[in-house]
Amino acid sequence: MPETDLKIRPASEGDSALLLEFIRALAEFEKMADQVEATEATVRETLFGENRRAAVEGIIGEWRGEPAAFAIYFHNFSTFTGRAGLYLEDLFVKPEYRRHGIGRQMLAHLANIAVERNCPRFEWVALDWNQSAADFYETLGAEQLNGWQSFRISGEPLKKLAQTA
Amino acid sequence: MPETDLKIRPASEGDSALLLEFIRALAEFEKMADQVEATEATVRETLFGENRRAAVEGIIGEWRGEPAAFAIYFHNFSTFTGRAGLYLEDLFVKPEYRRHGIGRQMLAHLANIAVERNCPRFEWVALDWNQSAADFYETLGAEQLNGWQSFRISGEPLKKLAQTA
Repeated sequence: MPETDLKIRPASEGDSALLLEFIRALAEFEKMADQVEATEATVRETLFGENRRAAVEGIIGEWRGEPAAFAIYFHNFSTFTGRAGLYLEDLFVKPEYRRHGIGRQMLAHLANIAVERNCPRFEWVALDWNQSAADFYETLGAEQLNGWQSFRISGEPLKKLAQTA
Repeated sequence: MPETDLKIRPASEGDSALLLEFIRALAEFEKMADQVEATEATVRETLFGENRRAAVEGIIGEWRGEPAAFAIYFHNFSTFTGRAGLYLEDLFVKPEYRRHGIGRQMLAHLANIAVERNCPRFEWVALDWNQSAADFYETLGAEQLNGWQSFRISGEPLKKLAQTA
């Protein structure tokens, strides 16, 4: 693609409303809009606030000047390597901007950040029925990680467990 | 257990060598010792260095004054909640200190940190054949997360992808 078509830039505090728009568009697309609790204020506080907890950052892909894609990522940690890695939490290209290779360029941009920051691993998850995504990731050299089961504790059980500390 | 038996405290820079010992003990236990690339220097730099990337922290559990357990955790991010969560990367109780409830207390301690920091979720992964672990986590109110496939890109493929940015 001509270099001028796509510009990928870091998200900054002034993008909080835009990021929330993207989050909602992603949730609509996944038919999970009712699960979005994020607000402009939580996005601003969590990504750009002084007391932010996670090392979380965003990038925005602009296609011919229009916001077309976003990604949210943070640094995770691998005990065995002893180093921080780069974890991609979400990547979304608006449907009307697909088939331009924007998703691939966003992944390449993030891979470049990982290499620059000396992160040995770049990781993400995808819905397990999405075979076309899996095939695409394999063409990039990604490997599937198997053998792990994820757990989450939240809401009342989290509070109850905390009270036993 | 008597409160004086177990003391859980944050790991600090002076614990870097101890953390590496724990990492090696965990790897030995999992028969993955050959995969440990971490050194005291990488642990020090990644957890306690000025330029650390990940929001990664550690706690140490001392049983009657002896280091018996450790946990490494960091903050992740959930797009839909718009908030940082707490992710447990590793928890290990030395075999000779098991059956005292130390693991449960370490989890409760971390749940308490999550609640104090307004993290709506506390998450981790376990080996998927470990049914006794899964059963234990369910007694704590944890739910299994299904439907996701993990991907990782590292080494040469990561460098190659980065070069196309």
